[in-house]
Amino acid sequence: MVGHIIPDGDCVGSLLGMYWGLRYLNKQVAIALQDKVPSLYDFLSGINIIQPSETNQSTSVIIFLDCSDKYRAGDEFAEQITASQLTVNIDHHPSNDLFADYNYVDAACVATAELVYRILMALDIKITFDMAEAIYTGIVMDSGNFLYNNTSPRTMRIVADLLECGVDIEKIRTNLFESKPRAEVLLLREGLKNLEFDSTGRLAWMTLSLQEVEAAGATAIHPEGIINYTRSIKGVEIGMLFRETSPGMVKVGFRSKGSVDVADLAIKLGGGGHQQAAGAHVKGSLQAVKEQVLGLAKDVLD
Amino acid sequence: MVGHIIPDGDCVGSLLGMYWGLRYLNKQVAIALQDKVPSLYDFLSGINIIQPSETNQSTSVIIFLDCSDKYRAGDEFAEQITASQLTVNIDHHPSNDLFADYNYVDAACVATAELVYRILMALDIKITFDMAEAIYTGIVMDSGNFLYNNTSPRTMRIVADLLECGVDIEKIRTNLFESKPRAEVLLLREGLKNLEFDSTGRLAWMTLSLQEVEAAGATAIHPEGIINYTRSIKGVEIGMLFRETSPGMVKVGFRSKGSVDVADLAIKLGGGGHQQAAGAHVKGSLQAVKEQVLGLAKDVLD
Repeated sequence: MVGHIIPDGDCVGSLLGMYWGLRYLNKQVAIALQDKVPSLYDFLSGINIIQPSETNQSTSVIIFLDCSDKYRAGDEFAEQITASQLTVNIDHHPSNDLFADYNYVDAACVATAELVYRILMALDIKITFDMAEAIYTGIVMDSGNFLYNNTSPRTMRIVADLLECGVDIEKIRTNLFESKPRAEVLLLREGLKNLEFDSTGRLAWMTLSLQEVEAAGATAIHPEGIINYTRSIKGVEIGMLFRETSPGMVKVGFRSKGSVDVADLAIKLGGGGHQQAAGAHVKGSLQAVKEQVLGLAKDVLD
Repeated sequence: MVGHIIPDGDCVGSLLGMYWGLRYLNKQVAIALQDKVPSLYDFLSGINIIQPSETNQSTSVIIFLDCSDKYRAGDEFAEQITASQLTVNIDHHPSNDLFADYNYVDAACVATAELVYRILMALDIKITFDMAEAIYTGIVMDSGNFLYNNTSPRTMRIVADLLECGVDIEKIRTNLFESKPRAEVLLLREGLKNLEFDSTGRLAWMTLSLQEVEAAGATAIHPEGIINYTRSIKGVEIGMLFRETSPGMVKVGFRSKGSVDVADLAIKLGGGGHQQAAGAHVKGSLQAVKEQVLGLAKDVLD
């Protein structure tokens, strides 16, 4: 089984949920990922069996989880798949291109882990604690604590079932939401020092210079937890983070509330993303990029 | 109907959920609260019918929601209740003293709003959008986004039912979690500037001087969102906030993870609370109170 590059909670949770399910059926299974799993997920049972992704010609079936196309598993890996290997594609991304021999794609699901649960149920597998904890992790992370739009009554009923299988909410909460690296907190501190608003209050942004990121010891920290903060402020419709990643290069992150589509903004800058979360890498100084992007963002709101 | 002083999401959501349920049955109902409802809940239907709490001798039944004893509704109000008025007590606090003529108390519930839902179901009431949104608000707020320990499979199934009644997650998310007052953000900025750890990393604390709180325009901001941040850091077992409320008076807030009981700490200082969230008002300068409390906190961890 494989998941996508830069693995997230849904990718890891789906893989481990499916892994324990197939092991229950006495199947031989391995999990391969190109990138390192964030240490956030170290508490999940089975996390240590995940290996670097290399194609293995002796593998007869390759199951892709949470990958909208086969290249999401890593370019090299995707290109080495042979015609004799059966491929399976289990995913919830609307952009999924149905690349596999067997495709189980449902974009109405808030998480791929929800699909894994349905498959295990269809296979009459008794959901063990290990399966339940992994699937719960996938759902809670991809649904933004059950608050993103695709969270459905069915999602909530699956979560109820998982709690009945013994998922320990306190353990989950401590591991996923109360184990912030100190560097992330220090980075938020730097970001908040540089928090600004436009005159209408509909735009808010933080800037982080390379020097500030390095001083916080936060070069490896994903800025998700920081940029979301800009959107959480009353009246803000577009939140932005300008983070200098190397001299003369700035990562711009966008978050929106409601109907504003920030993917459009990111595409104009050569990036991409979703309606409410998008980003782009832009050449230029922090100051120059900020001015350029703020101009574009103001146009979108007008 | 009445709720408690300093009303929170579960208090307001339970009151409005029950209000719309009783209105559905064509009952005459009024809601009274001693304290102002935070503007966070302005989006809920019926919020404007809430009045200041005054006992009204013509009221034949008084329903208390989310009150562990009758004085939680306000001392004056509680003392003016006459013997001829029937009292009903619907609550989920373990400390509830069953003060009313009719008591429906279940401490295993994560929110009083869960009990309101059960009552409406038992009365065969068709759950309308207004009821569903109010009850959902009570549950999501008191369960810490469905992550506090008393969140049960039953809680999740109720939430599933409420989503089927038309609750709009995006509206809820925007109103409850993406409408932070700017002053709260500025206060967090000040707090993070003063974030410190002990040498073990098991204690983390922020300090806020009266001057800093005033400069942030945050004298009316409840420090909940700020103090929780200290606990969210990896390795921290007790998070604290020292907030100068007037010259020579400091509000100390405690948050713990796992098994550390901070109510004990707060009680030693003349305050109180729960195992994982407690507080006390302590006389002294910020510096002196901080030193005293850190000494006590270190003893607890040893």
